[in-house]
Amino acid sequence: MTYCVSLKVDAGLVFASDSRTNAGFDQISTFRKMAVYERPGDRVLVLLSSGNLSISQSVRELLPAEQLASGSEPATTIWNAKSLFDAARVLGNALRRVYDQDGPALRAAGVDSSCTLILGGQIKGEQPRLFLVYSTGNFIEATAETCYFQIGESKYGKPVLDRMLVPSTPLAEATKCALVSIDSTLKSNLSVGLPIDLLVYEADSLRCDELACIDESNPYFSMIREAWGQGLQAAFDAIQDPDWQSPVVPHPLRVRSERYEVLRKVRGP
Amino acid sequence: MTYCVSLKVDAGLVFASDSRTNAGFDQISTFRKMAVYERPGDRVLVLLSSGNLSISQSVRELLPAEQLASGSEPATTIWNAKSLFDAARVLGNALRRVYDQDGPALRAAGVDSSCTLILGGQIKGEQPRLFLVYSTGNFIEATAETCYFQIGESKYGKPVLDRMLVPSTPLAEATKCALVSIDSTLKSNLSVGLPIDLLVYEADSLRCDELACIDESNPYFSMIREAWGQGLQAAFDAIQDPDWQSPVVPHPLRVRSERYEVLRKVRGP
Repeated sequence: MTYCVSLKVDAGLVFASDSRTNAGFDQISTFRKMAVYERPGDRVLVLLSSGNLSISQSVRELLPAEQLASGSEPATTIWNAKSLFDAARVLGNALRRVYDQDGPALRAAGVDSSCTLILGGQIKGEQPRLFLVYSTGNFIEATAETCYFQIGESKYGKPVLDRMLVPSTPLAEATKCALVSIDSTLKSNLSVGLPIDLLVYEADSLRCDELACIDESNPYFSMIREAWGQGLQAAFDAIQDPDWQSPVVPHPLRVRSERYEVLRKVRGP
Repeated sequence: MTYCVSLKVDAGLVFASDSRTNAGFDQISTFRKMAVYERPGDRVLVLLSSGNLSISQSVRELLPAEQLASGSEPATTIWNAKSLFDAARVLGNALRRVYDQDGPALRAAGVDSSCTLILGGQIKGEQPRLFLVYSTGNFIEATAETCYFQIGESKYGKPVLDRMLVPSTPLAEATKCALVSIDSTLKSNLSVGLPIDLLVYEADSLRCDELACIDESNPYFSMIREAWGQGLQAAFDAIQDPDWQSPVVPHPLRVRSERYEVLRKVRGP
């Protein structure tokens, strides 16, 4: 399994990915799922991948040289694309080429060959943008209403994003949010594992320097894990227990006595 | 979709179920997923169901009269079973009979006919017990190490159970835990919906009086939703933001500078 998350806020982009892959529970390895394509001052592109590892590794290998023909003009590559939209088309094309080559054999063997990718970053002249690329090579873009994408094991880490993240969230807070989301996923799914690759991109910087590889010994991530666990416990403890007996407490639990008729309650013979 | 959760603690059992069913996003209905079979002073059995509604409704209808032949002895029913294990066998048998009748036509039509059930309660002479019954009619029992079962959309509501619940948790606190688990699921999956059926069974009481039907207007559940949301926000806000610049903060984020070599960072031409 895999968990990758990417956030787009006004101040920039945050990318985080775990590094566990597994083919069954007895074959677990560590592979990085983040790749960066950078020409400082001109463009930064960050690729996150989930799904079939052979497909995503091939895409990563081919992408820097991938050419998408465009009529009489020079072919589009990730290095000359004028927009991140065009770069996502190049990525989709590379993905389709890998499927053309490996797909039939994988399907014949009944292997799940699906592969979902996230491509985000900034090309000079544009704002930062963030895309989710499907196995079929088509893609969608993050918007102000839905300003994050997740791939892989997404459910455990989604509630904190839904509750805490808006476009105006500062970049440092968005980074914290991504790491809490990763922590929740690590805690509930053993097939998602450390180290985490973290990349924070500041809008209009057109370079990426804020990179960290986070493992068990990382002081900030350890602090987050402990503080979040304690914070949840405190939030839980602060909620009043239900009271069935007294109808005069401020928050009575039982308010509809017609309940008994509604429930299918069968009395035994 | 569905979300049902059942907890077994030393002090008793808690059952909670949502009431939304859907066949596609444009066909959403309200059906209760909890049924109670009770002979006060002798036995209380609670059934929760998820999956194909026609299968689970048929099982619920047949269960009170279901007979499981046992050699020369009188057939076992849920009303004369000496243990909850035997009652779970009766339930598994009823489920298999429904599949024998409806399964072939459903499979032929390509309809997902899976149905997972929870059966818990107490029969006089035993401790309270809790079983998860699979579509195939076999079942597993909750233990001290894994003292809860979920069926349906289980992921969003699992972290709070993993963090807060142990066998010694008091019954009122376990009830609160089940409702927070339901709230997290409601918040993240639109196909899980109110009202919630809640049943709290006190060990050795051999009757069930603590039943509630919880809808939007329930004061206790509304308070939980608000307090939990505020508590999460406070827990999140209390965590220090990461600091990339200073290596002397107590929790530095970047501690491994060799990171740059490890990540596949491709410089453009």
